Amino acid sequence: MGILVRGGTVVNADISRRADVYIEDGSVKAVGAGLEAPGGCEIIDAGGALVMPGGIDPHTHMELPFMGTVASEDFFSGTTAGAVGGTTTIIDFAIPDPQENLIAAYKRCRGWAEKAATDYSFHVAITWWDETVHADMATLVQEHGVNSFKHFMAYKNAIMADDEILVNSFTRARELGALCTVHAENGELVFHLQREIFAKGITGPEGHPLSRPTEVEGEAANRAIRIAQVLNVPLYVVHNSCREAVEAIARARGEGQRVFGEVLAGHLLVDSSVYEHPDFDVAAAHVMSPPFRPKEHQEHLWHALQAGHLQTTATDHCCFCAPQKAAGRNDFTRIPNGTGGVEDRMHVLWHHGVNAGRLTPNEFVAVTSANAAKIFNIYPRKGVIAPGADADLVVWDTKKSRTISAKTHHQNVDYNIFEGMEVQGINTITIANGRVVYRDGDVRTVKGAGRNIERPAYATYYGAMDRQAALHAPKAVHRGEAAE
Amino acid sequence: MGILVRGGTVVNADISRRADVYIEDGSVKAVGAGLEAPGGCEIIDAGGALVMPGGIDPHTHMELPFMGTVASEDFFSGTTAGAVGGTTTIIDFAIPDPQENLIAAYKRCRGWAEKAATDYSFHVAITWWDETVHADMATLVQEHGVNSFKHFMAYKNAIMADDEILVNSFTRARELGALCTVHAENGELVFHLQREIFAKGITGPEGHPLSRPTEVEGEAANRAIRIAQVLNVPLYVVHNSCREAVEAIARARGEGQRVFGEVLAGHLLVDSSVYEHPDFDVAAAHVMSPPFRPKEHQEHLWHALQAGHLQTTATDHCCFCAPQKAAGRNDFTRIPNGTGGVEDRMHVLWHHGVNAGRLTPNEFVAVTSANAAKIFNIYPRKGVIAPGADADLVVWDTKKSRTISAKTHHQNVDYNIFEGMEVQGINTITIANGRVVYRDGDVRTVKGAGRNIERPAYATYYGAMDRQAALHAPKAVHRGEAAE
Amino acid sequence: MGILVRGGTVVNADISRRADVYIEDGSVKAVGAGLEAPGGCEIIDAGGALVMPGGIDPHTHMELPFMGTVASEDFFSGTTAGAVGGTTTIIDFAIPDPQENLIAAYKRCRGWAEKAATDYSFHVAITWWDETVHADMATLVQEHGVNSFKHFMAYKNAIMADDEILVNSFTRARELGALCTVHAENGELVFHLQREIFAKGITGPEGHPLSRPTEVEGEAANRAIRIAQVLNVPLYVVHNSCREAVEAIARARGEGQRVFGEVLAGHLLVDSSVYEHPDFDVAAAHVMSPPFRPKEHQEHLWHALQAGHLQTTATDHCCFCAPQKAAGRNDFTRIPNGTGGVEDRMHVLWHHGVNAGRLTPNEFVAVTSANAAKIFNIYPRKGVIAPGADADLVVWDTKKSRTISAKTHHQNVDYNIFEGMEVQGINTITIANGRVVYRDGDVRTVKGAGRNIERPAYATYYGAMDRQAALHAPKAVHRGEAAE
Amino acid sequence: MGILVRGGTVVNADISRRADVYIEDGSVKAVGAGLEAPGGCEIIDAGGALVMPGGIDPHTHMELPFMGTVASEDFFSGTTAGAVGGTTTIIDFAIPDPQENLIAAYKRCRGWAEKAATDYSFHVAITWWDETVHADMATLVQEHGVNSFKHFMAYKNAIMADDEILVNSFTRARELGALCTVHAENGELVFHLQREIFAKGITGPEGHPLSRPTEVEGEAANRAIRIAQVLNVPLYVVHNSCREAVEAIARARGEGQRVFGEVLAGHLLVDSSVYEHPDFDVAAAHVMSPPFRPKEHQEHLWHALQAGHLQTTATDHCCFCAPQKAAGRNDFTRIPNGTGGVEDRMHVLWHHGVNAGRLTPNEFVAVTSANAAKIFNIYPRKGVIAPGADADLVVWDTKKSRTISAKTHHQNVDYNIFEGMEVQGINTITIANGRVVYRDGDVRTVKGAGRNIERPAYATYYGAMDRQAALHAPKAVHRGEAAE
Ligand SMILES: [Zn+2]
Ligand SMILES: [Zn+2]
Ligand SMILES: [Zn+2]
Ligand SMILES: [Zn+2]
Ligand SMILES: [Zn+2]
Ligand SMILES: [Zn+2]
Ligand SMILES: [Zn+2]
Ligand SMILES: [Zn+2]
Repeated sequence: MGILVRGGTVVNADISRRADVYIEDGSVKAVGAGLEAPGGCEIIDAGGALVMPGGIDPHTHMELPFMGTVASEDFFSGTTAGAVGGTTTIIDFAIPDPQENLIAAYKRCRGWAEKAATDYSFHVAITWWDETVHADMATLVQEHGVNSFKHFMAYKNAIMADDEILVNSFTRARELGALCTVHAENGELVFHLQREIFAKGITGPEGHPLSRPTEVEGEAANRAIRIAQVLNVPLYVVHNSCREAVEAIARARGEGQRVFGEVLAGHLLVDSSVYEHPDFDVAAAHVMSPPFRPKEHQEHLWHALQAGHLQTTATDHCCFCAPQKAAGRNDFTRIPNGTGGVEDRMHVLWHHGVNAGRLTPNEFVAVTSANAAKIFNIYPRKGVIAPGADADLVVWDTKKSRTISAKTHHQNVDYNIFEGMEVQGINTITIANGRVVYRDGDVRTVKGAGRNIERPAYATYYGAMDRQAALHAPKAVHRGEAAE
Repeated sequence: MGILVRGGTVVNADISRRADVYIEDGSVKAVGAGLEAPGGCEIIDAGGALVMPGGIDPHTHMELPFMGTVASEDFFSGTTAGAVGGTTTIIDFAIPDPQENLIAAYKRCRGWAEKAATDYSFHVAITWWDETVHADMATLVQEHGVNSFKHFMAYKNAIMADDEILVNSFTRARELGALCTVHAENGELVFHLQREIFAKGITGPEGHPLSRPTEVEGEAANRAIRIAQVLNVPLYVVHNSCREAVEAIARARGEGQRVFGEVLAGHLLVDSSVYEHPDFDVAAAHVMSPPFRPKEHQEHLWHALQAGHLQTTATDHCCFCAPQKAAGRNDFTRIPNGTGGVEDRMHVLWHHGVNAGRLTPNEFVAVTSANAAKIFNIYPRKGVIAPGADADLVVWDTKKSRTISAKTHHQNVDYNIFEGMEVQGINTITIANGRVVYRDGDVRTVKGAGRNIERPAYATYYGAMDRQAALHAPKAVHRGEAAE
Repeated sequence: MGILVRGGTVVNADISRRADVYIEDGSVKAVGAGLEAPGGCEIIDAGGALVMPGGIDPHTHMELPFMGTVASEDFFSGTTAGAVGGTTTIIDFAIPDPQENLIAAYKRCRGWAEKAATDYSFHVAITWWDETVHADMATLVQEHGVNSFKHFMAYKNAIMADDEILVNSFTRARELGALCTVHAENGELVFHLQREIFAKGITGPEGHPLSRPTEVEGEAANRAIRIAQVLNVPLYVVHNSCREAVEAIARARGEGQRVFGEVLAGHLLVDSSVYEHPDFDVAAAHVMSPPFRPKEHQEHLWHALQAGHLQTTATDHCCFCAPQKAAGRNDFTRIPNGTGGVEDRMHVLWHHGVNAGRLTPNEFVAVTSANAAKIFNIYPRKGVIAPGADADLVVWDTKKSRTISAKTHHQNVDYNIFEGMEVQGINTITIANGRVVYRDGDVRTVKGAGRNIERPAYATYYGAMDRQAALHAPKAVHRGEAAE
Repeated sequence: MGILVRGGTVVNADISRRADVYIEDGSVKAVGAGLEAPGGCEIIDAGGALVMPGGIDPHTHMELPFMGTVASEDFFSGTTAGAVGGTTTIIDFAIPDPQENLIAAYKRCRGWAEKAATDYSFHVAITWWDETVHADMATLVQEHGVNSFKHFMAYKNAIMADDEILVNSFTRARELGALCTVHAENGELVFHLQREIFAKGITGPEGHPLSRPTEVEGEAANRAIRIAQVLNVPLYVVHNSCREAVEAIARARGEGQRVFGEVLAGHLLVDSSVYEHPDFDVAAAHVMSPPFRPKEHQEHLWHALQAGHLQTTATDHCCFCAPQKAAGRNDFTRIPNGTGGVEDRMHVLWHHGVNAGRLTPNEFVAVTSANAAKIFNIYPRKGVIAPGADADLVVWDTKKSRTISAKTHHQNVDYNIFEGMEVQGINTITIANGRVVYRDGDVRTVKGAGRNIERPAYATYYGAMDRQAALHAPKAVHRGEAAE
């Protein structure tokens, strides 16, 4: 009982072409012009629209316990909102507390995720170090399909990984063929600035960006990159928000290093003036880390995305409602960090990327789906419409518009950072795992329909890095000193 | 009467996977695991080898009349040598003399190319300017499938395009949806330095690099890029040989400009010490422009290729034998410029790229084939192994080695710039247009089997550039001065 | 009958210290604490104010014939306005018409300058080339104390120097020990854009910046730098206005090249929004080349000045009144290019430089006076307060303010680009050639009191360049081919 | 009983001119042409030689206790060797052990230094943190004339300052108007690599550079710079040895930050091939941190010095003889780190700087003396030949040569890293504190003649930084929430 999507233009990262897509058993079975419709199959008339791979959001935090509360979006509501907006896979995070067993933390998150409506996977954070962590990393890679480890360079006295942890964990990841990822902010500086700013009587949300200036991010990004370079490990820098971070990545890539970078839809389009808003709730709703930046950084982010210095787009979807944000009413350091976006990423990227001439439609697919799939080694299962791929796709009408609003969105949060933005080019249909989960306003997601996606270690770049390392292995000088 | 290539790993730019390839009527008909062999089809056992798209060399000069002689390699011998080395498509150049009619020049070259054994296409050079050139550019684009125009910024008093020509031609190309390409060397400086160096008594081949230092190339690359930026036209810089040029390209790409860059196999691996060779013939055999560079530039080129600042590899294959080179025995400015390489590019790129850990096999396909196909808008007809593509492919044995030598090569030239280099990883079979043209040392090319490949205008990047231009169109300030 | 300036803090480029300054016969005779006042000498009580070298404006155009009219400011009114604002030396330009004899043009300008109230000197422009130009350059250097030659890379069909002229002139300057300077804009692109913009119906002053975007300047700056690099000649790039030009200079300097850069007070503080002004006269008053730039470029200019990538500040003082500007009312290409500023440079630099914490007072002296004196080889005659130096100095009250306005300025032009700007830190006294020419609003300049300053060739950087060139002289390879 | 240095050319950082120099009571009294010789004064005939400020070596470690031994050079022998080579002032280091009282450590070093033959001063290292350190920093600045604090980012488990210490100390230095300095190497990475390399069986001196690659330095330099930027404190990075560090500094300076950089004579001229030497003693003699680097880094260092990205040259003079170095015969991590150079710096800088055309003589004075005096706020007492300055100077014969050798040098160490290097341009006379301490091979230094030089806080750059900070002070948003 398959589905035939007929009459569309299939847009992959490499090429666009008129083609039908036949789906069965959750997979794409055929892509080609004039496909026959098998008996009993559902026929969807794309009507000349684009047919593109479903979005992959490689950075979300559903129902995350954080800063004394829990993110309001759960795996079902969050993946549903994603599906409405054309995103059919998320990669979320399992974040152990310091001293907590990694496997236990991972399994807890896996449990929460069982209600997801679309596919998901987990990065695991390394927030502390001992021999069990060393061992558990192997278990995660080899038995659970985890191929990426996250490190928070900020959040001192909580989950911050200092250089010693980074060195240990990166070294271990290298042995396991896993990808290292970092949240890049210098935690010592943030800690110092928070107290200094607060001591100056700046207690409102405007203190948040003041305590996390772009240099703090640029420093940490560069540090992580250099550590990765020395240890010869691939690195993925999440949510780059500023010129400084982007320049560090571009520099490293230009020197041949295997570094990848992500940018959030929010950082591309929202600027730091939001923190000056006279309404605390509005300002607080934008508190996330790294914060939104002065407007001039946005063009750097777009250019980096165009140039390929950044490869992926994400949201860091991590929702807290106004009552939760209010915990920091008198102290900006207590405002839970996070904003939504999983529902809107594809739309704002198309409108401000493709419609604005910054990206071709193929590049759009690359940065919203294919590149993440390749970097996290689930391509071509995800990230492309081709025979054998999971049947995750969207039918995209480039003529249709919508206006983004918290009043109408499906995200379980009371604010939308893109509120009022009109975007043209949206998905009219979303298919996930071979099922229509959204069509023209009708939400059809099913709790628990999503699956955990195992991601194998040793993505292709590892092979190159190994060959290079072998060629440049250090050698001892033989001095014949045994004779002395 | 098809061919089934069975048991290999198909390597495309995006992914590698075990798959058989079925070919018929010059096209790939199917790619998949366990394909059935239709009756009567030839079965090629890949034996676990890689199966990759045939190489595209976007920069060759077969039988070019140049500097008072004619390149020794003709379209048959040259495409045959290419086929032996795994290259199945070339893009050559039609170069009108100043004041010569473009269409006539183009047709003359098309005539020469009829003997080609594999597919080919032509860039057309703009070496002068008047209204007929303006008109003929449209004819070439619209009636002959030419979508790229070449500009020589060097060769003063011959085919050099000065800034006025560049501005006119780039503007016209923009209207036609064509790609501008440049040979980037400041012709005034070269002209000046040639005379200055010669006047100092330096008459041998070592005078060649002295008269064309890297700054001369860096200047011209940057100038062409800036002109393209101002005129909003996509640009492709051929044969980047040095840090300076690469930095100009990287800078522009990092600012969001649509600039592409090519690097020659020779520049990646041969350095300027060759011009110091005591044997004139050896030194002269390496005279080409831009010249081979001091060794430190090579790592910059490799890094740029890895980072994606450069996207394509080529050879500038343009052969002259020792008796031809001898014309400049007493004056380096009279040594015909050019070296071979079309047969060796794929092998040296694999060995020094993939084996050395600089490139993954997928990146190898990208830089030897897929990227050129995309940039010159013949993808996915060329550059990928997928149903519908032309059946141009190689079976690649990563274990097999060969030693490159003029004594054994198939190029019609008496010297090989890679002489003595042992490379591991070579094609055992080449299939072009669905026919086996090379197998295990057996050369089976057929004169005239190659076809001219028309390349449509308006590659995908043009759409983005148009949208961007529309958004940023200049506007008049209305001052209501009519009322005064 | 000397002058003793007592009780001030002498600020030079290297250090500030409490010291008196004794002046006699137009020269500084002594600098030190507690100087004795010789009998009959005038005593000026600095009252704790700063005493600094008089400003050097290395880029002015007094009474320049240009675009069919003549600049309204003559050498007397212009140097008087300079003196009021603390500038005591200008370097103006002798600009021969194409085919005009250099010496004749130079002498004509020398004649005009005889009415100057303070010292002056002349750059000479190379606007064409033949053997007489080659010869006259030597005459100017050796007999007239001209050590700098100017090249306009813009103004096609008028005074534009194309690459051939640049190469010839730079080569000749190298032989003579002179400094090459360039106005860096790609003249072909400007010419093309002017026609294109006009053809789109954009005829007002807003067409001016549209026809001269920053890329046009960045290209030319880089080209001149590369040509200078290849020819091993020192280069001075005038009026850098944008990030692109500054980056070209910073890059070159970072690679060890002897390149100098100038920035205008106007470009540091005025942005391109002025061209959108609804009043034609206001918009046209700002028409100069390069035009004022989008605001984000200013921080790049300031940073470059702080970092030493740019060394001098100037004004390109070239005044045209509204009736003159009106020639281009219906065609922006006919608006005479130029704005004033010689009176205001020192004040706006102090206020926005020193008061804003971008420059120390010593750095202020460097960028307004000392560096120009060193680069143009008239240091320590100019640019420092030390025994033996010309007695050109200002007494500077850091507490006093003024508001800049065309209504009160002494410049002979009806507009001021800094209109309404309040600046704190101004000269209360100006001494030029040992005479008080301005004191507390009282203008005491004398027509003809200024002298032509001869500037010797072979500034110190030439010695280093010569030694470097000698070490890297090209050598022939000896092949013993005579034996063949 | 003064000294008149007659008939030389006085070379300062800003200008060279024929002038005599009259010295009395340890100070320069007069500089000018044709000075009268007061009765009884000693006359030194400079004979047309150059007369330049004595060198300042801002980075030495005399008699340092380090790695279980003590540096072989004491303050008398070391300053004597300096004087022989033209260096008349050193800035050494007081390095407290962790938990050691700063004042006590400082006083201990002051005691050692009493035997010095020429002037000296001390940086004080911050190797740990508590409230007493916070307080003692003020005491050192306000009572002892210490205006610079040193931080070792390497040497984990010993004197390493982690980010927390850096943030605390930099913040405190800012309050005190002191300059922060760093030894920039990532200590975690070095620690990790040392063990990793050793575990691979690489135990010889070649393990030293392998455990401290350039990326490790580049990371730390950038980190310190970013921390300084965020905290708005001036920073001085010692012994930059590689492209990575230099690029970090150049980047920061180009963005307007007040960052200074030092380069060692050794890093400019010695490369990492020394560690491959078959003789352990030779290889070990070169063990210092950062290590000597692959040769290509040297040109980056020279260019940075020319461009002003680096301002000072030093030696990190820290001598250990072969028996001391032998402690690490079987474990490179135990080889005491350090090499000599205080005697040779001026000579090698002149030969490879001035003679090679990289520096003018004035720039030579800047980078060997004047810039250090300015940065460490002892200018114009030191760093210039002018009335009032300390009488520290050299008579420099640009025609004379010497060959550097441990056999003839005056340094108390058995190896010379410049062994065999012939240099042209040397001091024939050194005058320190108004006394001839060296003349034509005759060493006349006196134990204890040197004085401690107090260095006042708040160098000129602090004023600018304060003004800038005041303009950009963070402000609270007033939300009137008190009303809620
Ligand atoms: Zn984060
Ligand atoms: Zn996150
Ligand atoms: Zn070419
Ligand atoms: Zn070519
Ligand atoms: Zn100009
Ligand atoms: Zn001008
Ligand atoms: Zn150190
Ligand atoms: Zn040290």
